[in-house]
Amino acid sequence: MRLAELSRRSGVSIATIKYYLREGLLPPGRQINATTAEYDGTHLRRLRLVRALIQVGRVPVASAREVLRHVDDESLGRTIRLGAALWELPQGPEPDEEDPAAAAARAEVDQLLRIVGWESARKIGPLSPVHRSLVALVAALVRLGYPCDAQLMAPYAELMHEAARRDLDRTESYESDTERVEMAVASAVLFEPVLRALHRLAQEEESARRYGFA
Amino acid sequence: MRLAELSRRSGVSIATIKYYLREGLLPPGRQINATTAEYDGTHLRRLRLVRALIQVGRVPVASAREVLRHVDDESLGRTIRLGAALWELPQGPEPDEEDPAAAAARAEVDQLLRIVGWESARKIGPLSPVHRSLVALVAALVRLGYPCDAQLMAPYAELMHEAARRDLDRTESYESDTERVEMAVASAVLFEPVLRALHRLAQEEESARRYGFA
Repeated sequence: MRLAELSRRSGVSIATIKYYLREGLLPPGRQINATTAEYDGTHLRRLRLVRALIQVGRVPVASAREVLRHVDDESLGRTIRLGAALWELPQGPEPDEEDPAAAAARAEVDQLLRIVGWESARKIGPLSPVHRSLVALVAALVRLGYPCDAQLMAPYAELMHEAARRDLDRTESYESDTERVEMAVASAVLFEPVLRALHRLAQEEESARRYGFA
Repeated sequence: MRLAELSRRSGVSIATIKYYLREGLLPPGRQINATTAEYDGTHLRRLRLVRALIQVGRVPVASAREVLRHVDDESLGRTIRLGAALWELPQGPEPDEEDPAAAAARAEVDQLLRIVGWESARKIGPLSPVHRSLVALVAALVRLGYPCDAQLMAPYAELMHEAARRDLDRTESYESDTERVEMAVASAVLFEPVLRALHRLAQEEESARRYGFA
């Protein structure tokens, strides 16, 4: 398809598509002649992901480019490729290495990973920005006087593991590795707020059941 | 205790405590004489919550004041009191009423609530900003071409319901209703990022288990 049709079918204006092409967020089309390029389904799919990242996820353009660079890197194994793409997304806080609460929090997170048997996550450890941000969050809670230890987190970790199994089952229905990684990134950006809304709604439901409305 | 001790024990500077007092985020102490006021454990607890809201949750001061107004309103039933406090927290997007996708999303959310049997949440409906923001999120996903229907969300909703049961069990270990509501607000602000980090870490763990590291 030509640029005009790509714009019509994606709902993204021609000017914005040209901007994404210039910024390297969208691969160039197949050049037919000096002024015309041909686009296909992969462009349509990529455009959808770019909008999810930038418009809904509010990911900065430079981060989005890094995310997509890993999504497209077929030389990487699937775990690394997905991990690298997700790690480029905006992350939570970083632990303050000077803070003794951070060392205690790191031990607590390690203990949690033992309890729930997440051996791979233990092996990756603080290499993962997700691991580091969990340590920073636990340290912040403890510093504020809200206890957050391994025992308290473990049952929540099991629930989130069940959610993660479903997430991966869903992505496995896609054909190519690239599509699977794209889907995983989109779901990290778009589905996390849905999960949070479901959690808050469940709290309202459960509260009304236990204590009534009055 | 005097102001200096409140500052020492809370780790919040005297200037900041005075600012919170002026802004009505912290109730005044018991005036002993013209220049001295006496503070107690409730001030210490409230200070912890104010810091959680403002410093960690990045809740604007005006919103924090509204949250605390509901936390302190003992005339309200517990569900309403908790609901009112949580509804003052920053929420997700609002649905665009002009958008046909929003109507479809509303029907999908209603169908979800039927499937999982959340009758109270159905009754409260779009009165709840959480309900409205779930509708807006589902509409945004569908518009981008990422399907998000009742069948897909239902198992996640069940997992989040299990998490919400645990949340409420935890808050019930506190003595007074005020403490319970305070704890629920703190956990909404502080524990949600922990849950999100656990979800991402679970995805890394599950991905490494299924596809290895290479």
